[in-house]
Amino acid sequence: MSTPKIQMLQRTIKRLMRRQAWPALDRAIEKTRPEDLAFILRDLSADERPVLIAHCKDDDKRAAVVADADVALAAGLLAALPREHAVALLKRIEPDDVSDILEQLDDEVAAGLLELMGIADRREVEELSRYDAASAGGIMSPRFFSLGRDTTAGEAIHKLQQLGDDLEMVFYVYVVNEVGQLVGVLSLRQLVTHRPDQRIFDIMVSDVISVSPEVDQEEVAKLASRYGLLAIPVVDDGNKLLGIVTVDDVIDVLREEATEDILRMGGAAGGDLAQQTVLRATLSRFPWLLATGLGGGLSALVIWAYLDALISHVALLIFVPLVLGMTGVTGVQSATIIGRRMDEGRSGRALLFSLVRQTVAGLFLGILCGALLGLGLRVLGLKDGATALLLGTAVAGSMGAAAALGAILPLIFSRLRLDPTLAAGPFVATAVDLVGLVIYLAIGTSSLFG
Amino acid sequence: MSTPKIQMLQRTIKRLMRRQAWPALDRAIEKTRPEDLAFILRDLSADERPVLIAHCKDDDKRAAVVADADVALAAGLLAALPREHAVALLKRIEPDDVSDILEQLDDEVAAGLLELMGIADRREVEELSRYDAASAGGIMSPRFFSLGRDTTAGEAIHKLQQLGDDLEMVFYVYVVNEVGQLVGVLSLRQLVTHRPDQRIFDIMVSDVISVSPEVDQEEVAKLASRYGLLAIPVVDDGNKLLGIVTVDDVIDVLREEATEDILRMGGAAGGDLAQQTVLRATLSRFPWLLATGLGGGLSALVIWAYLDALISHVALLIFVPLVLGMTGVTGVQSATIIGRRMDEGRSGRALLFSLVRQTVAGLFLGILCGALLGLGLRVLGLKDGATALLLGTAVAGSMGAAAALGAILPLIFSRLRLDPTLAAGPFVATAVDLVGLVIYLAIGTSSLFG
Repeated sequence: MSTPKIQMLQRTIKRLMRRQAWPALDRAIEKTRPEDLAFILRDLSADERPVLIAHCKDDDKRAAVVADADVALAAGLLAALPREHAVALLKRIEPDDVSDILEQLDDEVAAGLLELMGIADRREVEELSRYDAASAGGIMSPRFFSLGRDTTAGEAIHKLQQLGDDLEMVFYVYVVNEVGQLVGVLSLRQLVTHRPDQRIFDIMVSDVISVSPEVDQEEVAKLASRYGLLAIPVVDDGNKLLGIVTVDDVIDVLREEATEDILRMGGAAGGDLAQQTVLRATLSRFPWLLATGLGGGLSALVIWAYLDALISHVALLIFVPLVLGMTGVTGVQSATIIGRRMDEGRSGRALLFSLVRQTVAGLFLGILCGALLGLGLRVLGLKDGATALLLGTAVAGSMGAAAALGAILPLIFSRLRLDPTLAAGPFVATAVDLVGLVIYLAIGTSSLFG
Repeated sequence: MSTPKIQMLQRTIKRLMRRQAWPALDRAIEKTRPEDLAFILRDLSADERPVLIAHCKDDDKRAAVVADADVALAAGLLAALPREHAVALLKRIEPDDVSDILEQLDDEVAAGLLELMGIADRREVEELSRYDAASAGGIMSPRFFSLGRDTTAGEAIHKLQQLGDDLEMVFYVYVVNEVGQLVGVLSLRQLVTHRPDQRIFDIMVSDVISVSPEVDQEEVAKLASRYGLLAIPVVDDGNKLLGIVTVDDVIDVLREEATEDILRMGGAAGGDLAQQTVLRATLSRFPWLLATGLGGGLSALVIWAYLDALISHVALLIFVPLVLGMTGVTGVQSATIIGRRMDEGRSGRALLFSLVRQTVAGLFLGILCGALLGLGLRVLGLKDGATALLLGTAVAGSMGAAAALGAILPLIFSRLRLDPTLAAGPFVATAVDLVGLVIYLAIGTSSLFG
């Protein structure tokens, strides 16, 4: 369903709730997909959400809606239910999602729910919660379809038929040896297109792309994307198969990481947007402003040092905001482009070329903009030739420096094991503003041009 | 293969080429996956690339490498080959990829290659090139697996076995009626788990999520992601099945769109990064700087208007860079957060709440930062109480205004049918700098505080 259609349906559902038109509400919920109900849930009030869940036809639908909802929302809904009811839903949700939801709850509440889940389910969830939530181990599903080497294609299909709906996403059959080590993989497609009496060992591909559970989820997503895989097996040091990361998780990871990158660039990372109150928004935005404020404090010292010159050469003063704007944009441009190149996994040599290219481009842009400014001032008759030349040179110098600094910062960040995307946000803007200002004022007050 | 491993292999391949150690090069290429070779190709020189392609074992491997390479690179490689050889590779590449590659070539060259491809392949490619490259029609594959309603599960499996390797990614069987209209879908899994004599019409799901070919690729990716689909069928107005968009394309789209968003925020969008020269980098970065320069010109007028006040109240002058930095970050924060909320498809009401929340948070942050500045100046004994209060108030006012403006701009951009992400880049930074500066100077020079 397209987003506008869902928003329309949401208004309908809210109206039916207000009117307490329960049979109509039940019908509306019944014919809506769980994914759409989870989408609608986000923008309902805290009072309306449990009503929507209560009016789902059965626990299967309820569980599907909760599993598709934002994890903090899901936790809130479950916490409000009687324990036994919450457990009934959790048992219908994939263990990796259960682990994420429980992490949002009070330790005691989570332990109480786990207790009631039964040993098998509980062990699966506990196994997963050992790993970092953003690692392959944290997002993998321990429910995969694996068979011994001597199984035939026919037997494999028979086992698949017996599985029922326990394994939601079966794309591949993993082949393991006697001690559970991964030795090969074959697709459902290959299973179907070979003779039933062939051993899967003879059909399978033995060169399997796998990851260890500690690998960062972004790296897993990149591998799946690069090799066009629908699932990536997670194996321990001894190559024992622990779980699989499926393509739907990969897509979630890609979307999460994209959002995180954008929020970092915008100086707004930290904290869950969906759960944001004014206080949380204020707290998560403050650290970035503090860094900018410190940079601004240093800029104040620079202005103070050049105060006499600025007051006696007002031409220099007037263009301070322009220079800060231009250096900020130039530096962020360089940092963004180099950051992307690094994200693409370019080699050191290619990065070096990019760095030089963007710095030279920044210098050209500086000369271009400086010349435009100088010429503009001269043609409009606002300044004499010497002043125009001086201002133009100062703008060019500060922009060139900003371009270079912006290009280098992501590389430095990466060396310090910080996310290069951070370098393209307020941090670089503040740094290049300061450096740009110093260079602008130093050139502008020099007697180079008499 | 992890990125560091690929980079090591790349150095090996370059060394083998330099030493003209052809048998060793052949072996290294033979045991490397086409996806990894395509990755390596990007950072080889223009002379080395055709050598790598030439040393692939056969046309199947060559075609796989070319299909996985960046589209501009692929086009360059094909253009350098003899026509017959290029066509042999194109015939082994999926029609949607062929269409993208041909689009990069000279019209004449492309037409010449198409001519040689044979009627069936040619028609498929021409059909696809009718649609915008960034639409569902532009990324769909016309090669899907569809069957009539009365086919049984057993017959369907038999047909699947006869297909061979022609259809690369078969996840679903699409069910069509006599005139090719899509009536249902079932998964390979469902096919296998039902009795061979059951009609697929009785197994299939008839409520199929599909898109029309004009739908934007980002919307298609969002649908696939929301509903956890491995493929989305593309149908025309009459519900006739035209093609399918598969999950690997969806992942490519998500990555492309994320990169585009980040480049837009960084003021560096436009032009293909992979193909960038200094000149192209300069040209693609210039428009953003021009916009910033215009804003800076207006700021210069503002400073000029307040010149006397700034010279007689140097306290006000000293903090101009600080204020510009703080308003810039505050505005971009608001714009980034609201932009993300819009991307999530939040309803108008939820967006309004977000807008108010971020504006209030910005005002709080302004008061906090203003108070810190005022107190700092007072405690350090740098300014008298009245000046400190005035400066703090001016900072708070400008930051609050920046937060509000930053929050509103993405909504305005979206109304004007522009990408809201554009609003979180240099554009908003420039706009809030200007507005922030005016408010700061207006408050700072007011006689409110005597």
